[in-house]
Amino acid sequence: MAVAEISPSSYAKTLHSDLSSKPSNPLRARTSRCRSAALPPRPAPTIRCSVAPNQVQTLVSPAVPTGAASKRECFGVFCTTYDLKADEKTKSWKSLINIAVSGAAGMISNHLLFKLASGEVFGPDQPITLKLLGSERSFQALEGVAMELEDSLYPLLREVSIGINPYEVFQDVEWALLIGAKPRGPGMERAGLLDINGQIFAEQGKALNAVASRNVKVIVVGNPCNTNALICLKNAPNIPAKNFHALTRLDENRAKCQLALKAGVFYDRVSNVTIWGNHSTTQVPDFLNAKINGIPVKEVIKDTKWLEKDFTENVQKRGGVLIQKWGRSSAASTAVSVVDAIRSLIIPTPEGDWFSSGVYTNGNPYGIAEDIVFSMPCRSDGNGDYELVKDVVIDDYLRGRIKKSEAELLAEKRCVAHLTGEGNAYCDLPEDTMLPGEQ
Amino acid sequence: MAVAEISPSSYAKTLHSDLSSKPSNPLRARTSRCRSAALPPRPAPTIRCSVAPNQVQTLVSPAVPTGAASKRECFGVFCTTYDLKADEKTKSWKSLINIAVSGAAGMISNHLLFKLASGEVFGPDQPITLKLLGSERSFQALEGVAMELEDSLYPLLREVSIGINPYEVFQDVEWALLIGAKPRGPGMERAGLLDINGQIFAEQGKALNAVASRNVKVIVVGNPCNTNALICLKNAPNIPAKNFHALTRLDENRAKCQLALKAGVFYDRVSNVTIWGNHSTTQVPDFLNAKINGIPVKEVIKDTKWLEKDFTENVQKRGGVLIQKWGRSSAASTAVSVVDAIRSLIIPTPEGDWFSSGVYTNGNPYGIAEDIVFSMPCRSDGNGDYELVKDVVIDDYLRGRIKKSEAELLAEKRCVAHLTGEGNAYCDLPEDTMLPGEQ
Repeated sequence: MAVAEISPSSYAKTLHSDLSSKPSNPLRARTSRCRSAALPPRPAPTIRCSVAPNQVQTLVSPAVPTGAASKRECFGVFCTTYDLKADEKTKSWKSLINIAVSGAAGMISNHLLFKLASGEVFGPDQPITLKLLGSERSFQALEGVAMELEDSLYPLLREVSIGINPYEVFQDVEWALLIGAKPRGPGMERAGLLDINGQIFAEQGKALNAVASRNVKVIVVGNPCNTNALICLKNAPNIPAKNFHALTRLDENRAKCQLALKAGVFYDRVSNVTIWGNHSTTQVPDFLNAKINGIPVKEVIKDTKWLEKDFTENVQKRGGVLIQKWGRSSAASTAVSVVDAIRSLIIPTPEGDWFSSGVYTNGNPYGIAEDIVFSMPCRSDGNGDYELVKDVVIDDYLRGRIKKSEAELLAEKRCVAHLTGEGNAYCDLPEDTMLPGEQ
Repeated sequence: MAVAEISPSSYAKTLHSDLSSKPSNPLRARTSRCRSAALPPRPAPTIRCSVAPNQVQTLVSPAVPTGAASKRECFGVFCTTYDLKADEKTKSWKSLINIAVSGAAGMISNHLLFKLASGEVFGPDQPITLKLLGSERSFQALEGVAMELEDSLYPLLREVSIGINPYEVFQDVEWALLIGAKPRGPGMERAGLLDINGQIFAEQGKALNAVASRNVKVIVVGNPCNTNALICLKNAPNIPAKNFHALTRLDENRAKCQLALKAGVFYDRVSNVTIWGNHSTTQVPDFLNAKINGIPVKEVIKDTKWLEKDFTENVQKRGGVLIQKWGRSSAASTAVSVVDAIRSLIIPTPEGDWFSSGVYTNGNPYGIAEDIVFSMPCRSDGNGDYELVKDVVIDDYLRGRIKKSEAELLAEKRCVAHLTGEGNAYCDLPEDTMLPGEQ
């Protein structure tokens, strides 16, 4: 049995790790950014894991795949030169930021990329670079996506590159939106899915650690997203663990809509909704702290049975109902919720309100186990960072449900110990808690 | 043989027809807009056509389908009450506008609807109603789309209704974005496609004529879009013919990108690009009047062979290449181009520039045959209307190609005479001019 070469302690609290950041991309008069030669791969830390006998033993690739190296390239019209400073319309723009999107040929990304390019996310004076990560199999599709981005003539979209090697695509990125994950195949257990996708996120964590901006913000969408985010941050010890998010914003948005529907109000009247825990059926949409028109939900909606049972069910079955109705999964509204998640970090949170995000639990004030990724209520000054909200009420009912989700995440964590450098994986997941309609 | 009950002359020049408009939706404190009972159908003008023997004889439905009448409804959370005037954040907003989108369950709409709802199209202070038109077959999918719109919590999206009856969905709409059309089945000739889709657009024209805002702007995307737009406007004699557009903006965007690529400049340097003619392979992307950095393209790109041959081919084959690469048609960039088309009508055109749109030819200064829908260079004051640009150069080369596209559109018009109230249809289309990658 192999021994982990990186001890678990080296992964402990990365919250205050190296924050010295490289300067982010300066606004520059370019002659050309089209690099035809691939960058030399940086060595990634080698991890060999001890794997329990019931786990499929698959080695995490320690180095940059060589065959893939030539596949990074600027794309088409985005290889041309420009000078933002020379133009009256663009000279007051902010400095270019680099955004990586994985699973870039998929349907969620197909919505998200055009939202990013339009300025809807980062604003009308923020030029961006999109760095699209796909797979060998999806490379042609990536070209198709890049062609559609070309044909959209978005003025703010200044550079696009496509690639299949995260060590190249993640170079200098300030945002990494990790959408791509393998769907669960027929007969695959959740443990198997955790392992397969965990390997992807372990590799992407290493790549971010090696080449991304030192203060990169990472939003993990690919399922199981909480544990994928944990794996990712564990493999990126030089990036603050606080910078990693698992997306629970679609759950929050759906919860707000369901409360609005029940109360007969427009959804903009609903605030302070927390999704606690895992992005799975153990998640806890919190009606105790939520408000409608500034009044606690329980004073507006008196139907306790609905709140304690139907509300959560309605939120969770939404994706499944959508697939029944439309035959497709909820790509558009997922992309909208990624936009919301980003904007919640770059725009100050409205006074008295908060948003939900799956974040690293170390130092949390709720008594939730440390060292997992758990959705909790957050506020932001709009600087990309966030703080946990302190004045929330957790009653026995809420505590009981939060504990169940916490237990699940601790079990998932034991399942992927071989991917986080924490020794033997031991997988004991009692039931399938995948949300209906998700892969 | 049946005789047309409405003489062709009653369709002549609708440009100056009834412009007396109903007041558009006032901003209102609602108690409820959710009408559970269907509106009584307004009688549509009855047209029976004489149809040439080589045409499939299909009657245009003269009345509202009764079974469909119950299917119009406000949707879910969008049936709730709100009062924009009562809220500090929304009281300065503009009056609500009604936007209809047909083919609302399709992929182009799936991009477009979320762009409309986000405020990207009509601006951050313009609340909107989305009225989604689908078919009996797609009704469940419409519900799925509406659910995703609910879950997106867009503050500007105040009302959503779904339906399959254009006489209900088009009620009071100020914009009608007609995306839906039947794809060409195996072995179907272009004439057959013209007939099948022509019937859809004849019916939708009648419905717009009966129930839409008197100054509704109509953008036809469903193919063959020029002739569909002609059929639509001919069936809506009480709406100015000038208000109908056939989308050639994706072609213009692609042309700008190709010129940028060839010249090695960013696409924002390219201006004054016209697409002349039909949205088909006879279309003429105009490099003669186009400019790069304000300089005529021919002075920047000296490669005449490329300009006269490859340029047009590159623009036209783009959709086909995309399907090869991605396996899907260009839904996202088509939706972007619909956004561009709308914004070109509601934002003043930059000094010295223009945009392309397929518009009614009556009174055009280019010598193009009257009474067809032809893509030409337009400018707008930003009030929803446009004027044709006068100072463009048409040399013999351009004239020859424009004539070919004009001849095709005149032939298409003869093909659908039974749908425009102009007597016998006679179909003589020599070749398939569908653009690659389009249906």
